[in-house]
This record gives sequence, C-alpha cells and structure tokens, in this order.
Amino acid sequence: MSKREGRGKAEITLVPDGAVVRGAIGASILRVLQECNVQIESSCGGNGTCGRCRIRFLTRPPEPTAHDLAQIDSADIARGWRLACAHTLRGDIRIEVASTTGELDQKATETPAPPVGELNPPVRLRAVRWTAPSREDPRPLATRLAVAVDACPPRFPPTLARLPGILRSDGTISVIEQADGILDVRPGEDAKVCGLAIDVGTTTLALHLVDLASGRTLGRAAARNPQRRFGADVISRIAHVRRTPADGVPDLHAAVVDGLNALAATLAKTAKITPEEIYHATVVGNPTMLHLLLGIDPRGIDVAPYAPVFTARTSCRASDLGLRLHPCALVETLPGVSAYVGADIVGGLLETALDRRPGRSLYLDIGTNGEIVLALDGHLIACSTAAGPAFEGASIVQGMAALHGAIESVSIGDGRITCDVIGKTAARGMCGTGLLSAVAELRAVGAIDPSGRFAASNQHLSDRFDGEGATRRFRLTDGAEPVYLYQSDVREFQLAKAAIRTGIETLLRRAHVDAERLDAVLIGGAFSAGLSRRHLPATGLVPTLDPDRIELVGDAAGRGAVRVLLDARLAEAVDRLAETVEYVELSGDREFSDLFVKHIPFPPGPADRSPASIDESRTPTDGRA
Amino acid sequence: MSKREGRGKAEITLVPDGAVVRGAIGASILRVLQECNVQIESSCGGNGTCGRCRIRFLTRPPEPTAHDLAQIDSADIARGWRLACAHTLRGDIRIEVASTTGELDQKATETPAPPVGELNPPVRLRAVRWTAPSREDPRPLATRLAVAVDACPPRFPPTLARLPGILRSDGTISVIEQADGILDVRPGEDAKVCGLAIDVGTTTLALHLVDLASGRTLGRAAARNPQRRFGADVISRIAHVRRTPADGVPDLHAAVVDGLNALAATLAKTAKITPEEIYHATVVGNPTMLHLLLGIDPRGIDVAPYAPVFTARTSCRASDLGLRLHPCALVETLPGVSAYVGADIVGGLLETALDRRPGRSLYLDIGTNGEIVLALDGHLIACSTAAGPAFEGASIVQGMAALHGAIESVSIGDGRITCDVIGKTAARGMCGTGLLSAVAELRAVGAIDPSGRFAASNQHLSDRFDGEGATRRFRLTDGAEPVYLYQSDVREFQLAKAAIRTGIETLLRRAHVDAERLDAVLIGGAFSAGLSRRHLPATGLVPTLDPDRIELVGDAAGRGAVRVLLDARLAEAVDRLAETVEYVELSGDREFSDLFVKHIPFPPGPADRSPASIDESRTPTDGRA
Repeated sequence: MSKREGRGKAEITLVPDGAVVRGAIGASILRVLQECNVQIESSCGGNGTCGRCRIRFLTRPPEPTAHDLAQIDSADIARGWRLACAHTLRGDIRIEVASTTGELDQKATETPAPPVGELNPPVRLRAVRWTAPSREDPRPLATRLAVAVDACPPRFPPTLARLPGILRSDGTISVIEQADGILDVRPGEDAKVCGLAIDVGTTTLALHLVDLASGRTLGRAAARNPQRRFGADVISRIAHVRRTPADGVPDLHAAVVDGLNALAATLAKTAKITPEEIYHATVVGNPTMLHLLLGIDPRGIDVAPYAPVFTARTSCRASDLGLRLHPCALVETLPGVSAYVGADIVGGLLETALDRRPGRSLYLDIGTNGEIVLALDGHLIACSTAAGPAFEGASIVQGMAALHGAIESVSIGDGRITCDVIGKTAARGMCGTGLLSAVAELRAVGAIDPSGRFAASNQHLSDRFDGEGATRRFRLTDGAEPVYLYQSDVREFQLAKAAIRTGIETLLRRAHVDAERLDAVLIGGAFSAGLSRRHLPATGLVPTLDPDRIELVGDAAGRGAVRVLLDARLAEAVDRLAETVEYVELSGDREFSDLFVKHIPFPPGPADRSPASIDESRTPTDGRA
Repeated sequence: MSKREGRGKAEITLVPDGAVVRGAIGASILRVLQECNVQIESSCGGNGTCGRCRIRFLTRPPEPTAHDLAQIDSADIARGWRLACAHTLRGDIRIEVASTTGELDQKATETPAPPVGELNPPVRLRAVRWTAPSREDPRPLATRLAVAVDACPPRFPPTLARLPGILRSDGTISVIEQADGILDVRPGEDAKVCGLAIDVGTTTLALHLVDLASGRTLGRAAARNPQRRFGADVISRIAHVRRTPADGVPDLHAAVVDGLNALAATLAKTAKITPEEIYHATVVGNPTMLHLLLGIDPRGIDVAPYAPVFTARTSCRASDLGLRLHPCALVETLPGVSAYVGADIVGGLLETALDRRPGRSLYLDIGTNGEIVLALDGHLIACSTAAGPAFEGASIVQGMAALHGAIESVSIGDGRITCDVIGKTAARGMCGTGLLSAVAELRAVGAIDPSGRFAASNQHLSDRFDGEGATRRFRLTDGAEPVYLYQSDVREFQLAKAAIRTGIETLLRRAHVDAERLDAVLIGGAFSAGLSRRHLPATGLVPTLDPDRIELVGDAAGRGAVRVLLDARLAEAVDRLAETVEYVELSGDREFSDLFVKHIPFPPGPADRSPASIDESRTPTDGRA
C-alpha cells in the first residue's frame, strides 16, 4: 500500500509473518486488527476485561494502562505485552499477536489422519517428453499438447496462459489433467498434485492437505473463522447481513476467504509446496457457511420457512471465490439436506456409512448448532438444534478455542484436580470439552447439584470456590493466572446440552424408538476428540446408555470431505446420500419447549444419594434420569 | 478515486460522457489521456506536428502555443480547441476530445445487418410462474427452480447469488438457460436475452449486438483498438511484450478489454438494454488479438517457427476476461488456422461458404495483415502477408480511421475531383479506401506513373501539386485545411499492395492455377465497403480480371461471428472448417522477395499509352501487367 494513500494513517507490521495492515491514527489497535481480519481473540467487546487481545510491541511499547496491569503480569508487561483494546494507534508499529492464524487449532490438527481408501482423484499427473515447436511442426502449443497426452486441447484462458512459459523449450513436463481436460503444465516430471478438504465451521476453519497421487495427508491445520467478529453463530452473521445489506455478504465472504487463504498458505509452506500446486478442493460446512463462502445472500435461512438458496453440490473455480489455490482448481461444496443440516453432516454420514448400518444409531455433530441424525436400518431422519457457542468455548467466561493453553479435559480424584492442557503449557482458559468434563466431574463429586447450582459439599474442594451468585466460581488451576469455571458457565452448558438432548428426544419420539434400544451413538465434530464417553450420559447430553455404545468418531465431516477428494466417483454417491435424508423441522414442533425445559437439570448422579466422596467420584456416573 | 491519493495529481473530466481520469501535474495531457486508455488520435508521437490530438477546454483554456496556432484555425482556437500534446496538466480540467470511442467507426457500423438465418441460440429464455417457498415447501430456491423448468439446478455461485433477490417472492419470472444449465433469473416474463459478436481487429474493434430471441441486430458499433498506442501492427504489439515482459500482456489485455467494454456499453445504451442482458459472445480476430484478449503471451507468433499458443475454439466467462457483460456469459473465440490466419478469416469462410463453392475462388481480407485463401472446388489453401497499416489509414500522412471526416473515395472526371467524405462533413483526412481510390484515379489520369512517381502530366491537375521529393503532394480537397496525398503515401500504398499481390501469386503458383482462370475474387473486411471494384486490378492489388468477377463481401468475419452466435450448432461446423484449411508459410518461400519487387510498380494503364485526358480517365483501367 502506498504511503501516499491518506495521511492520518499508520502501519502495523505483524511479526513473524511480516504482514502489514493500516489503520487510522487514533483508532483502537484491536479494532484496526479486527477490521483487517487479523485473527485476535477478544470476548469482552474491547472493554479491557477479558485479557485475551494481547499483543507484544516490538517497537517501543506504550505506557501500560490500568487494564494492562490488571490483565497481564509484570514480567510480560516488561517484555512489551499489552492489551490491543487498551491502546490507540499513534504511529507505525511492529507487533506480535498472542493468538493469530499462526497459532493453529491443535486439537483439530492432532486428530488421526484418515486412512487412504480407493484412489480415484479428480486430478492426475502425466509426465511426457516435450519437443518445442519447429519449422517442421509449427502447430499451436495447445494442439500439440493435446496430441501428446491424447486429451482435448485446453480451452480455458488461464490454462492456455500457462503454456508458453513451459512449452517453448524441450524437456520433460508434467501435464495435470482433470476429467474435462488439461488443467496445467509444469516443468519436470515430478510436479506435486495436491488437494484440499475444507471444513468451514461457524467457529473453526479446518483444512486437510492431501497428496492426490498417493492419498497421503501432507498436513492439517485449523484456526478460528475470522467471521466471528461479525457474530458468534449463524443467526448473528445473517443479522449482520440484514443490518448492512450492501456490504454484509461481501464482508463475510472476504473474511472466510482470507481465513482459508491464510491457513492454506501455512499448510502449503509446511508441506513445502506452493498454494498453486493445490488443484482441487472439496468443502463441507453448514448451509450458512457455504452460502457465505460462495458469496450468496443467506437471508431466508434464519426465518420461516427456512429455505436456503441451495443445498445441492456446487462447483466453481478457486479464482471465482478469491481462494489462492491454483486459479483453475475446481472447488466443490458437498451437498446438504436443509437450511440447518449441511454438507458437514452429509460428509460425516458418508464417512461413518450410517446409511449402511443395521439397527438403530444416532449421529451427533456437537457445535454451535447441534445436528442429529437417527438411522433406522438405513433410513435416515435428521434435525438441527441451536446449542449456542458454549461447546466451542465461546460464551464461557474463560472459554477459548482448542488452541495452545486450553484445558481440554478435567479429572477429579484423590482430592486433586488434574487438567489436561493443549500443548502441555500453562492453562489460559478452557475449550468446549474442558467445559463438559469440568461440569461432569464436579457434578460427579456433588459440587454441582442436579439443578446446576454450585454446591460446595466436598470438603477437599470447598476452598476452591469464591464469589456469589452468577459470578460464583470454581478454581480449576492454581498459579498466578488461575482458570475458573463460573456459575454462569454451568448455566450456559445446561442450555446447550438441553438443546441437543431435546433434538435427540424429538427424533426418537417421531420414530417411536426407545432411547434404551439405541445400538450406537456416534459423536462427530472436533468436539469429540479428547472427550470422555462416560461424561455424555452423566450430564444428560445424550440419553442414559452404556458408554461402550458411544463411538467418538472425531472429525468425520472433514474425513468425509477427504474421502470425496480422493475418490471422485463418490461425488454422485454423496448426492444420493443427501437426497435420502428425511428432515424434521423442530421449529414447528409443539413439544420442543416442554422437552427443552425438562432437560435443563442434570440427571441424578451418585453424589446425590450419598455424601460425596473422592472415591465415589471415580465411579462411572451412569445413574438414570 | 479518492482525492487523498497523492497530491501532485489532477483530474481530467471528459465531456460528454463524464468519465474522470487522473494524472500527475506537469505531465503531458496527451500522455495522461493515452495512459488512461482514452481514445485519442495521434501519429507524430506527441511532437505537435500531426495536429490530431485535438481537445477542447471547457474550463479556461491555456494560452495557445506555436504548435496550436500552426495546426488549429483561429476560430477553433477561440472556441477552446488545443493540441493535447502541446499542454501539460496544471490543475483539474474539463475537456472534450476530438475523436473518442464516442465517435464510432461509421463505415464498419453502416454495413448492412446480416440476414437472420436458422435460429438455435446458445441462450434461451423461459417465462414461468413462481411461488415463493412456504412451510409446506421449504426446498432450496435452486432445487425448486430446477424442477420448475425441468433442468439441472444451477451450481455456479454467481448464478446462485442471483436467485434470492428474485425467488423469495411470488410472480412471473424469466429463466435464462444455456446448454449446461440455468444462467440467470429475472423478474417479469419479458427479459431481454442478447448476444454479442465481437471482431477484434488490430486497428478496429467492431461489435454486433443481437437479440437472441428474434435474431434481429439491435445495433453495431466500431472504434479504434486502444492497443494502438502500443504499436500499429501485431508485430509492434508483441515487441511491446518483449520490452516489458511483466506488464506487456496485462497492458494490452486491459486496453482491448477497456475498448470492448466502452463499445458494449454504448451499444447497450442505444439499444436500451443493460450490458448484463448480454448473455453470450462469439469472438473473431487474428491470433495475436485473440491471445491478448485472453491474456495469453503472444511471443512466438512473431518468430520462427511461428507457433501460437492456441488456434482452437476457446471458451470462458465474461468475468474471467473482465468483460462487463453478464458475468456468467460464455465468451467463445472461433477457431483459427495458424499464427497469421485467424478466427476472423474462418468467420469469413463460414459466411461466404467458400468451402462449398465450385470452381476456383480467392478470398482476401485486406488490413494491416492481408490474409488470402484460395478455394479449389472446396479445398482451401491459405497464407498471410504483412501489408502494413496503410490500408487502415495509418502510416499515411493524413491517414485516419474510417471516422467522420475521412475521405472514403475519390473520383476524377471533367477536370474535377470529387471526394466522398464519411458523415458528409469537411474532410479531415483519408481512410484506406480513400487512399486506394485516390491512387487509382490519379494513376488512371497519368498523374502517377507506372513506377509510382507523381507526374503532373494532366493540365487540369498540375496546379494541385506542390513540394518536392518525398514531401511532394497532391491537394485532394480545397478550403482552409486541405487534405493532401503525399508522394510518401503512394510509396506506402505500393508496398502494401505488392505484399498482398505476392501472397496471391504464391498461392496460385503452388496450386498451379492461372490467375485468368479464377472464377471469383471475394474481398472481405471493413475495407471492402465503399470500394470501387475496378480500382483493384487497376492498381495491381489483385490480378487483372474482369471487375464483374470481384465480389465485395464486406464484414464477412463479423457476420460469420453473428451466424455462430445465432446457431450454436455451427460451433462444431466451424471447428471442422478451420481444420480443413491448408496453411502455406510465406516466410519460408524463396520466390517471395522476387515476386514482391516485381509487384511494386503499377500495371500499365490507359494514360501510359496516350496523353491523359479527362474522358479517358473514366474508362475502366483493366490494362494487363
């Protein structure tokens, strides 16, 4: 950007990646970073109270404010750490942001790579010997290339534009082909042909980079969806479009594309390829996310009759969307079912082959929206329910994404609390599974009563409580910056789990299936990684059943997308799969409110019958509701 | 553009269209206008000597310079006319440019509209009753639309993005479909579905706007190719790419796209449609022009072995090229034959059905390059020869495009010279046909001798000569600003016609055909409009034959493009036609130089045998060479 463009502006250089953003002098640094789509955590609206928007000044740091001193320890203050919301831009600065796209969502990244199935990739490489045109054979480059690989000549200008740089001299070349023709040429015989499976979550973007020749996963990465600054859930993002009809869709489209480009660039760099070597992408996500990725107005998804613009598979080129892959790479979105049961669920159904399972199974994808599919000997019935962002670590006082420093699970035993922290580092907050296990464990030892109130019945834990009412809290970790579970967090959790459970119960009633007769409950989504199966029925999130019948299937949606990426023939199979799902609209269900209220309390647990003891808290909490 | 962007800049507002361009204060106004792709004539390189870059100041005009006073009459000086090259930008100004895209190429525009053949357009309209989604039928908009018109659901994001604005309420809608699916929806039942046939000439851009439902031509427009500021012919345009490898192709691509967008907008406005109602385009042009339109590096076309990147039909969307039609409009380039026999020739062959003519025929397209096709009972042999820009009015001292004010034909009789001027206005210069007829008529009365030298043998004309040597000139028109034919212009003409003639003779020799046995000579290209058939053999441009066997077929290339636009089935026929043409490379021909030199003089005419008389000059000049 030119220095000339506007006085009254200053540059922020971001370390380590060197990106430069510009903002008005006098503007909040947090606001500038958010407006430029720099990924930075913040949950208090820039009021200086959440302490998440930490930046480190590499140029001379400003004097610390009261907010800085309240949120950041003195050693870090001395090292230049400040809150971005507590300072305004006064001139050009160089900073490091505590949690940018550079810091990947470890949990989503560390789930096991999908197995390589049958390989039938949509893009293939062929190495051929090439002889430059001569007086004897002056045919056009495109014609000679088509003859050399026995294919139709390329007709798409960006592909044609690639030819002269390579085909005007002799040598071995790599010809990259897709079903409808030649896509690219590269010098040498061992060009890389990669594909990308993209899961556009409301909260988290997750990418798998795959070598299309071997089927091997070259890397995975995940980060927060930068659209979050427009709202935590799909409804608030659509509300942003309603508020700003002209800019809303372009804003949200640009934010998600920027986020995907940053992640793809990071993945490519790690795998030692260039983003231009990514020749195909399959995309899953909920319908609102896919509408926004394609730049399509999602209004209508949020109001009755909840008709989306599309659910069928779509296809366009990376350059059509502004995705910085190979410009001609086809980007395919997998089909969805309805306004709230999207391609992510269909990807999960494909991956788990739910339609081919005998008996009665449930598939749950737990996130900001909970999607639920009941399979009855291959017949699939689906619904969706708004759980809110608690399961993704948002709306929780010290909630965070599954990044380094997030508590992902809690266990209480022998009077001790053990917190597993992602990255084996000091805890900074808790992610969704951390919340679930904290609540389940405290519930098991009687520190939370069936109504959800904190009850310091356990002598070993009572000194960990402080505060009153909604701000009453339980200290999970010790040290200078402890992580607390607040009474309000337990309430958020209860509303979220009640929404999911109500969806499950509604589907079971519709199908006249007794919960006890379920053969399996499959839990998908990034949320399922690191989950303790026994915590699910214990909190009432799923019906009471033997935890052995719970299968944690992890990121089934993403693996489903990888599967389609590696076997192009599955594209039509997945179309048929999406068409067979019967959708149940819960918003028209009269029993929903009654069921929801019924499932806000926790099911009775062992601690409700006898005074809680440390030993009892280790027993599986499988009491009946 | 923001005022903030750079001090030291000023704005030029162009009247009447209101466009605003910006340039550095102190820069030549001509240079600023050229750099911003404003169409302005200039042939002296901004030296103040050609007098073509006239602009009229609507803000206070600067003091006239010596160049202004030498080139512009005092009445026009008083009205604010100045030379753009003679003044620098000193602040914001409002100006009118003497010859912008607003001034269309009248000659190209006034040729007769092509007849409507069999209609099978690539895009069709269907009006259907639409009912908005309801609780009873909340299926996605795209699915319901596909069912309503019994087509595949649209899968391309820009098409999907059009749906919510129209399909969320009840009413009659127009569904616009192409072979592979739905392209657009519009409110109401009578949407316009238009197509564009584009002829990208090295010198002139020509467009036909067609109603695809009726086949009717809605308008035609032509203007100078703005690429001309990078060079007059294809070789100098490719040289620009060689000089500036990074920017060359983008510069040339942007220039032609800007020119086409301006013309399409003008045409659309006149036809009372929006450019977004243009849903398909077919393009003809020489291979270099098509490479540059598609943004493909043309280097290789200019050096042996003269292998282009492509000649086959290509297809992409308007938005891929930056053409402001409907963004999803398919833009198809017709196939060419070789590096110098392009889609314009193939369009002409289709239009004239040369491959289905019995006997021996020649097809000539006369322009900066001359393309020649010999048809022998359907067998087609082609070659190309570089004539230089004389036939397009360039490289001639007072040459100009076929715009208002151009002399397009000259006749000499009864001691009087009659000049037909385009637009029936005062002559400002001469276009290619004006040059040809001036030379032919002066030759017929003996004022030009067989070697091409001016010879004032005719008493009625001798007072019209002045000057010496190469600057000796003949006054064609009277008045304050006469138009002259210079001795150097006659030389330019001779080189150009010798090049064409040599191509013809080479093809005839290869095929062992005697020129006298030709059944027909077809002259295509904008050049052929307004041409006098007897002038062609008289100047030696074509072999000596009965002028009745010469057919002036006009803009056959453009009509061929219209034909394909109206009948999509012709696309494959034209592919086959292009493949059947046998190409002869003249650059490897040893006899070429000898033949070329032989054809520089004129064939003997009537005035060479007897002292020229006015009466004799009216006799057809069909003497043998």
